[in-house]
Amino acid sequence: MASSRDSTFRSSETVAIVGVGLIGGSIAASLRKRGHTGAIVGVGRNQERLAEIRKAGLIDQGTQSLGEAASEADLIVVCTPVDVIPAAVREAATVCRPGTLLTDAGSVKGSICQALLGRLPPQAEFIGSHPLAGSERQGHAHADADLFEGRVCVVTPDAATSPGQLARLKCFWQTLGSAVVELSPEAHDRALAETSHLPHVVAAALAATLAPENRQFAATGFRDTTRIAASDPELWSAIFLANADEVLARLDAYDQRLGDLRTAITNRDAAALKKLLQVAKTAREALRAGTTTH
Amino acid sequence: MASSRDSTFRSSETVAIVGVGLIGGSIAASLRKRGHTGAIVGVGRNQERLAEIRKAGLIDQGTQSLGEAASEADLIVVCTPVDVIPAAVREAATVCRPGTLLTDAGSVKGSICQALLGRLPPQAEFIGSHPLAGSERQGHAHADADLFEGRVCVVTPDAATSPGQLARLKCFWQTLGSAVVELSPEAHDRALAETSHLPHVVAAALAATLAPENRQFAATGFRDTTRIAASDPELWSAIFLANADEVLARLDAYDQRLGDLRTAITNRDAAALKKLLQVAKTAREALRAGTTTH
Repeated sequence: MASSRDSTFRSSETVAIVGVGLIGGSIAASLRKRGHTGAIVGVGRNQERLAEIRKAGLIDQGTQSLGEAASEADLIVVCTPVDVIPAAVREAATVCRPGTLLTDAGSVKGSICQALLGRLPPQAEFIGSHPLAGSERQGHAHADADLFEGRVCVVTPDAATSPGQLARLKCFWQTLGSAVVELSPEAHDRALAETSHLPHVVAAALAATLAPENRQFAATGFRDTTRIAASDPELWSAIFLANADEVLARLDAYDQRLGDLRTAITNRDAAALKKLLQVAKTAREALRAGTTTH
Repeated sequence: MASSRDSTFRSSETVAIVGVGLIGGSIAASLRKRGHTGAIVGVGRNQERLAEIRKAGLIDQGTQSLGEAASEADLIVVCTPVDVIPAAVREAATVCRPGTLLTDAGSVKGSICQALLGRLPPQAEFIGSHPLAGSERQGHAHADADLFEGRVCVVTPDAATSPGQLARLKCFWQTLGSAVVELSPEAHDRALAETSHLPHVVAAALAATLAPENRQFAATGFRDTTRIAASDPELWSAIFLANADEVLARLDAYDQRLGDLRTAITNRDAAALKKLLQVAKTAREALRAGTTTH
């Protein structure tokens, strides 16, 4: 059992995973693969689905009662859609034991951390997390024990965060294979608006532009550029709205670049066009070094 | 040796490939793999590179003389950047034998076909081709014998096209594993503006938006959405300019979709946002069926 003075994540801890979909299921699968010996408790709304997930070997117990799971857990990871994370964290915090660490896996951090700041009982501590891993696919059936391997996980401590719990959280994500980066919730939302939320808007607009009669002419370029447009509308509308100001600001920056390209094409200006495309190529190629995917 | 009355592509034909990069090299590799027995002649500007390509086993002969290669060939495939295709076809057509079929692999067809219509000597016939296969990578070193396998190849006959040569051209691409679709050059350019040229503009604008300090937060979503932004600026500026009107028209349609998403985010209108994202998801998922990549 963990206490607030611990600064490592132990393989014997009881971990409650709230929302056992792609991310929650992958956390469970990853813990299993890495020899976790403590109980893994899944919390969900659907009893049949929880039974399936238990049968699949991802969790030891499944329960519809967040309070029941939270009262036994050393670590609670909330993997629900972003708009319901604060309520789940608050509910869990009221019943958990002293020293329990609460975190999440949401794609936005500012609104979640603000909603929780100073509103939790003293025995519970919440620190935000965002593992930069995912898929346009959904559900525990796509859970992947190596989803976090070699990926960045952002954690967002604030002024009230205790060093011991922060170290413990980092240790947890490192156990799953991630490289942990610390950012303020606001810096996270600014950066991820650009690297994740904006691409989702762009891919959705592009996919929606495709006329059915042209589908047969969509090759790998179109397919790759729009892959994330197949993501869940419910999840992503919540993300866009939870980070609306930053997403709109990055959309403005993007529109500027798109406008430059449009102007060069309109003016049949080959030199300007080549220069703009070279800037894009250089930026894209800078992503290649030191990554497992490209 | 082929005559204008033949309507099949024979494995004994002499094939000249003008421009032995990714596409030209892959045509050569694919012919080899499928048991082509006729000579494969590569035409290029750089003697050393041609020697390398010959050493790699892709071609039987390499020459800097388009005329020399064209005079011996039964089939000539011009795989140069789009802006120099018409000149290469005209040069080859003046020296080739009666019955020789000329084609290309360019990503635009209207401007190329217009530049050639009625301007070739009577013994030569040109029919445009566009294999919908490629990569952001360049050069014969990335040649892939299966690049065309299971992919669509568009061929663009016009009123002057002879049925026998059209059948022969289709047989050639089918030999490489492609499914052939006939379109007019104009219909090709309209469709491909949407499925290929527009995604390249969008991906370039998105890649150019990425600030260097945010690179570490670019995960698979950003990477996939911008993969084709690493394409060659020279090649793609020529493509955008050769199909400028259609590209601009598709950019308008895309801007409309992007504007709808922006408005929904600005208005914090979750219902509208979900609806737009659902349209995108449905369009993207319609691409999945019957494809090798998704």
